[in-house]
Amino acid sequence: MLDIVHRIGAVASPEDVYRALTTVEGLAGWWTEDTKQDGDAGEAGGVIRFRFAGAPEPGGFDMQVLEVAPCELVRWEVVAGPDEWLGTEVSFELSQEDGFTIVMFRHSGWREVVPFMYHCSTKWATFLMSLKSLTETGSGQPAPRDVQVSNWH
Amino acid sequence: MLDIVHRIGAVASPEDVYRALTTVEGLAGWWTEDTKQDGDAGEAGGVIRFRFAGAPEPGGFDMQVLEVAPCELVRWEVVAGPDEWLGTEVSFELSQEDGFTIVMFRHSGWREVVPFMYHCSTKWATFLMSLKSLTETGSGQPAPRDVQVSNWH
Repeated sequence: MLDIVHRIGAVASPEDVYRALTTVEGLAGWWTEDTKQDGDAGEAGGVIRFRFAGAPEPGGFDMQVLEVAPCELVRWEVVAGPDEWLGTEVSFELSQEDGFTIVMFRHSGWREVVPFMYHCSTKWATFLMSLKSLTETGSGQPAPRDVQVSNWH
Repeated sequence: MLDIVHRIGAVASPEDVYRALTTVEGLAGWWTEDTKQDGDAGEAGGVIRFRFAGAPEPGGFDMQVLEVAPCELVRWEVVAGPDEWLGTEVSFELSQEDGFTIVMFRHSGWREVVPFMYHCSTKWATFLMSLKSLTETGSGQPAPRDVQVSNWH
């Protein structure tokens, strides 16, 4: 099991959190402002293109939506991006607890524990905190305004 | 391999980062204000007691220092704490890159991928960002002033 896992809870409705994970506008509000879709970001088969200024070719990640269940689950496969990410999966499981919408995040299928995996784990945490902030306050910290964690940004 | 991994970089000297990992004053500045030592927090054999208000018995974690190498490595074993943490290891490897002191963090030896592991992964990220902040600005966000990530705090 070479997975990155995280858990956050947002004081927001499951509908709002689900929308932030399944629409271009929502995703652009917490991960990267440069988000586009081919097909529908909220339906299986859709492809979402996330781009980051200065990232090596292809400049970010393309995710194919594998599975969605409203207010419960979003699952993507990485279909373009850096070698370490290709073929890996990213999932968000939603539930409710104590007035929070809980997001159980998993980025699974890493083939090696490389330094880039360490970096991505920390970056995912800060982006998930950005998702929390977006759904709680209306304002996140997507790239290029994202939190810098190191020299790799 | 059931490990939590993170990578941060601080614009600070390796000496300052190492001090923040091997002295009670340093550790209290980014992880929890309630930090005490039995023996020396900066020498193999020393035990460091980290406590958090409201945490179940024993109220936090006791770490035995397994290994230290000045400005390069700190390695602890969890000798008291919640069942999921007992016997696991926490390590910080330091290096220098582009004017940053890089911290490669690893919390290894988890026996199961439980929800608590997801939570701890996110909390470690925010505490490592607190370590970055402490060494860069002189001020971190240790408990009880730590960043809340969910209903589990």
